[in-house]
Amino acid sequence: MSSLQAVHNIPEICAQLGITDVVLSPGSRCAPLTIAFARHPKIRVRTVPDERAAAFIGLGLAQAQRRAVALVCTSGTAGLNYAPAVAEAYFQQIPLVIFTADRPPEWIDQLDGQTIRQHNLYGAHAKGTFEFPADTSHSDAQWHAARLVNEAINLAQTSPAGPVQVNVPLREPFYPKQGEELQFVPVKVTRELPGRPQLSITTLQELHEAIRSTSRVLVVAGQHPADAELLLALHQFAAAYQVPVVGDLIANLHLPAAASYDQRLRPLGRQDVFMAVPEPGLKEALKPELLITFGQSLISKALKLYLRTTKPAQHWHIQAAGTVADTFQSLTKIVRMEPADFFAAFGEASLSSLETAQQKQTTRSIPVGPTTRVEPQGFEPFEPVIIARTDATRVAPGPTRLLWPGTATQLTDTEASAKAAYLKPWLAAENWAAGFLQEFMHQPTQPFNEFTAIHRALQHLPDGTALHLANSMAVRYANILGVPPGQQVEVFANRGTSGIDGCTSTAVGAALARPQRPVVLLTGDVAFFYDRNAFWHNYPTPNLRVVLLNNHAGGIFRLIDGPRQQPELEELFETSQPLRAENTARDFGLHYFPVSTFAELESALPVFFAAETGAALLEITTDSPTNADFFERYRAAVRTSFST
Amino acid sequence: MSSLQAVHNIPEICAQLGITDVVLSPGSRCAPLTIAFARHPKIRVRTVPDERAAAFIGLGLAQAQRRAVALVCTSGTAGLNYAPAVAEAYFQQIPLVIFTADRPPEWIDQLDGQTIRQHNLYGAHAKGTFEFPADTSHSDAQWHAARLVNEAINLAQTSPAGPVQVNVPLREPFYPKQGEELQFVPVKVTRELPGRPQLSITTLQELHEAIRSTSRVLVVAGQHPADAELLLALHQFAAAYQVPVVGDLIANLHLPAAASYDQRLRPLGRQDVFMAVPEPGLKEALKPELLITFGQSLISKALKLYLRTTKPAQHWHIQAAGTVADTFQSLTKIVRMEPADFFAAFGEASLSSLETAQQKQTTRSIPVGPTTRVEPQGFEPFEPVIIARTDATRVAPGPTRLLWPGTATQLTDTEASAKAAYLKPWLAAENWAAGFLQEFMHQPTQPFNEFTAIHRALQHLPDGTALHLANSMAVRYANILGVPPGQQVEVFANRGTSGIDGCTSTAVGAALARPQRPVVLLTGDVAFFYDRNAFWHNYPTPNLRVVLLNNHAGGIFRLIDGPRQQPELEELFETSQPLRAENTARDFGLHYFPVSTFAELESALPVFFAAETGAALLEITTDSPTNADFFERYRAAVRTSFST
Repeated sequence: MSSLQAVHNIPEICAQLGITDVVLSPGSRCAPLTIAFARHPKIRVRTVPDERAAAFIGLGLAQAQRRAVALVCTSGTAGLNYAPAVAEAYFQQIPLVIFTADRPPEWIDQLDGQTIRQHNLYGAHAKGTFEFPADTSHSDAQWHAARLVNEAINLAQTSPAGPVQVNVPLREPFYPKQGEELQFVPVKVTRELPGRPQLSITTLQELHEAIRSTSRVLVVAGQHPADAELLLALHQFAAAYQVPVVGDLIANLHLPAAASYDQRLRPLGRQDVFMAVPEPGLKEALKPELLITFGQSLISKALKLYLRTTKPAQHWHIQAAGTVADTFQSLTKIVRMEPADFFAAFGEASLSSLETAQQKQTTRSIPVGPTTRVEPQGFEPFEPVIIARTDATRVAPGPTRLLWPGTATQLTDTEASAKAAYLKPWLAAENWAAGFLQEFMHQPTQPFNEFTAIHRALQHLPDGTALHLANSMAVRYANILGVPPGQQVEVFANRGTSGIDGCTSTAVGAALARPQRPVVLLTGDVAFFYDRNAFWHNYPTPNLRVVLLNNHAGGIFRLIDGPRQQPELEELFETSQPLRAENTARDFGLHYFPVSTFAELESALPVFFAAETGAALLEITTDSPTNADFFERYRAAVRTSFST
Repeated sequence: MSSLQAVHNIPEICAQLGITDVVLSPGSRCAPLTIAFARHPKIRVRTVPDERAAAFIGLGLAQAQRRAVALVCTSGTAGLNYAPAVAEAYFQQIPLVIFTADRPPEWIDQLDGQTIRQHNLYGAHAKGTFEFPADTSHSDAQWHAARLVNEAINLAQTSPAGPVQVNVPLREPFYPKQGEELQFVPVKVTRELPGRPQLSITTLQELHEAIRSTSRVLVVAGQHPADAELLLALHQFAAAYQVPVVGDLIANLHLPAAASYDQRLRPLGRQDVFMAVPEPGLKEALKPELLITFGQSLISKALKLYLRTTKPAQHWHIQAAGTVADTFQSLTKIVRMEPADFFAAFGEASLSSLETAQQKQTTRSIPVGPTTRVEPQGFEPFEPVIIARTDATRVAPGPTRLLWPGTATQLTDTEASAKAAYLKPWLAAENWAAGFLQEFMHQPTQPFNEFTAIHRALQHLPDGTALHLANSMAVRYANILGVPPGQQVEVFANRGTSGIDGCTSTAVGAALARPQRPVVLLTGDVAFFYDRNAFWHNYPTPNLRVVLLNNHAGGIFRLIDGPRQQPELEELFETSQPLRAENTARDFGLHYFPVSTFAELESALPVFFAAETGAALLEITTDSPTNADFFERYRAAVRTSFST
């Protein structure tokens, strides 16, 4: 048996456990891994020279495919260049299995090239680190080698998902002899069947009572992948209890939950607008007593600060596993369930069914809740097309066939009218904000500016787009504006760490993952030029469209009071930079659309987004002070225009 | 007192402890640090948006200036992008003081933006990590804040120098009020006066006896900054004991030690050539019994493998402090002295003076050795011009005034002839290699190839050049070829980790550090495009020349037997890439010289290197298979041409 057989088994284990895509970066020490992955019939490899970009491309692939992706790099600082993407994956809970080739342990710190201290390379930002045995001649070592790769993959995928490192020390020879065939032998794997936590009927009933009897119940969603099942459960929950649901664009609540969706109760998304209104009366009217949250971070600083100030008496956060943040300094309950299960539980758990279930529970101990499943947690395939044709036999698609018709009617008249009184100002604020934006963004006399340009670009998004929002201003602008309803735009952003370092690469990964789906990246110039190496590889992305807001600076700093007033603004905060993207577009064969007027923009947009155009870059050149002035005009208008 | 006074004291402490240069990257959380450094009258700040490049630029500045440089970045993944440079600085022993702005501890893991786990961010690759107090209202906390910054700087500079992290949690407000003046108050600092370790006279005498009585003594230098004092001591040592001294280009032994240098005993540098000769007789003749080494890593794989195979009976490594590698698996003694002191000690320690010293030592315990000094260890200013006019009153410049005239004469005739017998084949091999190269590289019929192109470019290096050699083939080619003698070319390479990730940025840092000195970067296409953001800032580098070997691939893989024979060669190892540097040159205002024939190269070189040309890029486009063929021809010629 080849001394590298244990290494050749790695792709076999990966394939058996559902990893299909591997991003490699070139190197010599990693050659045995590279060759093994490249030759395995069930693995698709892609090679990307800049490891920083490679890791974010892997993250984008995993995010789009909703399954773990493997990364392979050589020894030395190669693996350190993965670190920004690893941290993002950790906080965004995306499973990455990172194979770092290494010298064997005896050669560490012996002045050989490309040798650093690779054990636990990602510190607090990996879920685990595993040391592959350097010598696998003993059969116990072979079992150990296979077992730890298996453990690493399972750990990466266990909720909350995240990155793991497998450090693989390798001795020469690295390469098979010319013409030598690699053996892929069947390897025993251990599959982990994740359970989904359920609360007891008694606990559910207590929660139900609290929701029912509290007038001011607010649901706020943080970042969450699009999830048809969750959307439906959430919608039915909102309908049953008549509670407002608020979500940023990255919460993906704007996707239609079902054909017969009650439009009045669709989740709200214009909180960045109406929360900026300095109306104490409005703030008072919106104040929750019971806040229910799920998902990761919020973009809307206005909403976040409001909730921190208002300090609801109760704050429940719904999260099946992992560290829970007390984002609003008011956390009182952590509910260990998947959000979809939680919201569905109150569907199936109308008082009468709860009682029946309780009786059942006295005779058998199987907890009653939503359908028992053994699918992977938290990282399930989302097919946007499915949303519109939800299987009616599984979950009822509309209010006429609510699964828990009893719940809503169990609200007493007093309760129902209190809930309606709380819902009303939320709906009014959302409606006002939508109307205000509609009017403000379409005012005829305005200078060419990036805020309006984004608004127009968003109107042209192809149906079914995966929209990637770069940090820092792109994601903020888009969260204010929203996407046009009904276009099934799924929204992604690297908000785990909110870095600018890999936004483009993540979008490239998404484009590679699903070549039939339009992927649109909305980005600023600093994020764009920072991560240009995203394009530096040999794989076409005809479905990728990059909308670049080039104000020749880190424009965000001109929009914040502090730096705007400093003499160092231009040199040290904005860091003005003269680059245009034309040369980058030329280097990487992107169709280039430069615009600097509304007329140019409007005429470019349809061609730019057309499917037949291929990979393209729309460079919207604006002036940073003009952008700041216009955005200030917008903020002033928000402050003075509010009325209900 | 401003609540940020403790932060405003940081640049004051840095300035007092000798830090003059700070590389900033833009951000909001780091604004108090940015503003404090920018406004301090004794600090020069530069801002670089891509933190990966920023950190390597800082490393290049520190390397060129031979003193610590500070880095400042915002919270989140910004600091992770420093990681490759931090690892390089750790292994290359370059002092960096890294200030990472952070949220205060209570906001970690609370889903706020740009928040990761920053404590000990660089793990095993930093000398230390310090947590700045979040609250400095108590006077003890103010003392703590100042003290730990002081400790961090001292630690970074203590031999072996290296990177340290100071994590600085900051609460809003980050910005001074408009027009507010920052106070820079005098702060008490603690200066560390490093001693240089000396051995006892008895020990020195034992070592002297061993060197004297061993016929086959070989000195091998690893990577070492240019050091006039070391060169002179080494030369005098070699002259006294008649021992061969071998050093790679990055050992900087090719610099002239003094005007009256004995050319016969100048250090050897063509080991990459003659060590590749498959002559068992030669290998036997060169075999050392006592190997004395100093410095960091070797480039010459042939020499390294030879020394590993030959296993000298004694191997002494001279290193004042820090972990010592057993690079050749034969280490028997670690000598805790600075190499310059060690080699000088045998000058001052001729037997008679040793005896005198011993008598003295019986009456007083002050060890006698070289002049006692309290200068910083291991990181002293090197001024190439000084070499030619060494102060004759301090160390004698030539053999006529050897400080230890007794030593050589103490060799018995037998000893002297044994030493001469061992020295002879080394000199012969070096002479043969130099002649072979001269003939081989100038052969009239050869295709245009990068190996010859480099040879020609090196002949044109301006006098006093700081030559930066990128990994991976550039540094190998140059180490084979050497630089023309007498041009005072100081050589740098990121061989701490041998990464390709920051070679350009390091050269840019060097160019910024000393605008009057020519800085030439020799690099391949993968390293070049990887680190293009090295140029993405607003500081001119008219003294920078980039010689880019573009073979549109990671050509090194075609030069190694293993990958060359794999079907995956082009896609996964070479990773062929179509980029030309023209667009990059245009983006960053570099004068662009594209060449693809010898005639074009020869006519471009004088203009390209002329001082008045300004920042320029010479793109030498070659064909990867042709390069591989020609290099194979070279290797075959080495194998067959050897004669003495």
